[in-house]
Amino acid sequence: MRILVAGGDGFCGWPTALYLSSRSHTVAIADNLARRDWDAELGTESLTEISSLDDRVSRWKEVSGKEISTFVGDLCDEDFVYSMVESFEPEAFVHFGEQRSAPYSMIDRHHAVFTQTNNVVGNLNIMFAIQSLVPDCHLIKLGTMGEYGTPNIDIEEGWIEIEHKGRKDTLPFPKQPGSFYHLSKVHDSHNIMFARRIWGMRATDLNQGVVYNVETDETSSDPVLANRYDYDGVFGTALNRFIAQAANGNDITVYGEGGQTRGFIDIRDTVRCIEIAAENPAEAGEFRVFNQFTEQWSVLQLAKLVEKVAKTLDLDPRLTHLENPRVEKEAHYFKAANTRLIDLGLKPHLLTEETVEKLLLVALENRDRIHPETFEARVNWRSPRYK
Amino acid sequence: MRILVAGGDGFCGWPTALYLSSRSHTVAIADNLARRDWDAELGTESLTEISSLDDRVSRWKEVSGKEISTFVGDLCDEDFVYSMVESFEPEAFVHFGEQRSAPYSMIDRHHAVFTQTNNVVGNLNIMFAIQSLVPDCHLIKLGTMGEYGTPNIDIEEGWIEIEHKGRKDTLPFPKQPGSFYHLSKVHDSHNIMFARRIWGMRATDLNQGVVYNVETDETSSDPVLANRYDYDGVFGTALNRFIAQAANGNDITVYGEGGQTRGFIDIRDTVRCIEIAAENPAEAGEFRVFNQFTEQWSVLQLAKLVEKVAKTLDLDPRLTHLENPRVEKEAHYFKAANTRLIDLGLKPHLLTEETVEKLLLVALENRDRIHPETFEARVNWRSPRYK
Repeated sequence: MRILVAGGDGFCGWPTALYLSSRSHTVAIADNLARRDWDAELGTESLTEISSLDDRVSRWKEVSGKEISTFVGDLCDEDFVYSMVESFEPEAFVHFGEQRSAPYSMIDRHHAVFTQTNNVVGNLNIMFAIQSLVPDCHLIKLGTMGEYGTPNIDIEEGWIEIEHKGRKDTLPFPKQPGSFYHLSKVHDSHNIMFARRIWGMRATDLNQGVVYNVETDETSSDPVLANRYDYDGVFGTALNRFIAQAANGNDITVYGEGGQTRGFIDIRDTVRCIEIAAENPAEAGEFRVFNQFTEQWSVLQLAKLVEKVAKTLDLDPRLTHLENPRVEKEAHYFKAANTRLIDLGLKPHLLTEETVEKLLLVALENRDRIHPETFEARVNWRSPRYK
Repeated sequence: MRILVAGGDGFCGWPTALYLSSRSHTVAIADNLARRDWDAELGTESLTEISSLDDRVSRWKEVSGKEISTFVGDLCDEDFVYSMVESFEPEAFVHFGEQRSAPYSMIDRHHAVFTQTNNVVGNLNIMFAIQSLVPDCHLIKLGTMGEYGTPNIDIEEGWIEIEHKGRKDTLPFPKQPGSFYHLSKVHDSHNIMFARRIWGMRATDLNQGVVYNVETDETSSDPVLANRYDYDGVFGTALNRFIAQAANGNDITVYGEGGQTRGFIDIRDTVRCIEIAAENPAEAGEFRVFNQFTEQWSVLQLAKLVEKVAKTLDLDPRLTHLENPRVEKEAHYFKAANTRLIDLGLKPHLLTEETVEKLLLVALENRDRIHPETFEARVNWRSPRYK
């Protein structure tokens, strides 16, 4: 199958591109390389060293014999998107190519507007290019579990049957996202839902949980193929930050009480989920939603897991609590459905002490790349910064 | 009260600014005058002659003795918004300043992207400016009944209590908007809902029905104060188009069977609804939704009403059906709540033959300004035009 991976230079996109290529799909990567610039803007860097995209795909060819073509450009540039889709003619368009950090979107007005414009316009360009040029192409769009927020009812996979005043309908599950980034994904979902209705677009929205772990079989097969390992307070997620803090001899800092419960998924399952979605495409006119996570953890549970594993490596991190810079419930109901990918064949890797240990060892090896000042929660949800 | 009316040069904004000014509020208008350019782009013009914004406010001062200050600029220009809010210090910010035509947003990719960017970014700039400078200011945001689509259950005012698997929560009412324009309003609503949660913003979302009629007491008090009267296939709504068709001796063209039922409101009630919302502000941290319409009509009922009144004026329009250029259900359940504004004192003007007759007479007087080629449904929902 001809599969285009937008955002294919990023944390999820790169291992996905390699995995699909290893499974004999014809893969192309689209990326504007912006993620690398954001590291520079924030004064941080991946714990692992990241090769250039050119070096990555050349080495992949040496290692695997398989070619991945690249399109370097901006999804907000409609001519770029149009000519890429025209020349590659994808059968599946996997769309990871968005600004994906909640704190980044909350820095100030500029970053909020940038995130929403970048994500919404890029996605609109993709929708129009697909429908104009390859209307049978299946859009596989990365959403987030964070679109749902934490309602006091069970979260279903995208749709919910509502009975109200004696009548019934199956309607889009109500969304209560928690950042301007999460909002951009809600906007995308609504736009795509509309496109399937008016154009008969085939679309799968993957509401992904927080992704942990770093390497897959493919990315670990050669140092030049290494995946990025973000640990900072803006792009790193809680687990990675806790691990880097422990490795560096700093406190493990939990926001608030740490009762926030979320869905999580191993990067090795992310790549498999994309394959499952691609190989079982949505019908024409179907807007299909899969909740792409395999287990639920609270932030405090993660912190304690890291603390425990760190002790077995003779580290002795202290677990401390910071005032939560985000506005979110710290004690709440959270139960989300996630059976649809499993029904299609996903066999989850669950989070183990062994995985945490491996991540801790990588962090210890790369201690010189840890910038402890970036652990800090520099972005506060409560203060609207205009400039 | 100091009230800023964004979009104050437009069809709803202008009569609202005059009405609030006549009721002794201190009113300012913000507008980039873009609506006038869109007429030029589409080769159409208002049936009534529209004076320049400067002439309008000068004449208003002569007629009423009241001053309305003006800020001419683009809400997507953050410096313009920031300095305006800083200098005027509004207590209520009435936001009509968006691209408001569904067909305009469906012309092609460019118009879809423009509509969503223009509306979402303008609204984000307003949200950030309010919270940074005048956090107690009440945002009164114009949404649309079209955000809800046509679910098979009763439509509530913004929120719905859902009981699901033995648990309960009150959640945002699920949205199924029918154009890229309507989607932009859904995006705005989600963004504002988030702002009230993190910043404690005061916000009222007015999900307005289709507005009919043209003049209010204020706009009809002097020809220079006249309101715009759109009748074309892009910015004109069905009722006005039917009236212009009848006045011009053309067929009244109904899209499909005409069973589409929508909420409607007289422009004289629109201006009063804004006053009600402003004088009864939302609490800090409250996101309040009012469904701003007073009656439900199907498209076919409107066409028959116009046909009937036209006959009393010795016109003899033929009622014909066109293939529907939109993708929408033509036979559907539609029952929407609209009690909250009435509970706060709204006394609806309902659509009468007298109102239609008045509109028909204005159209007959201005027959030389009717461009019958613009009646045509030139925008089709089904064909994604990329360029």
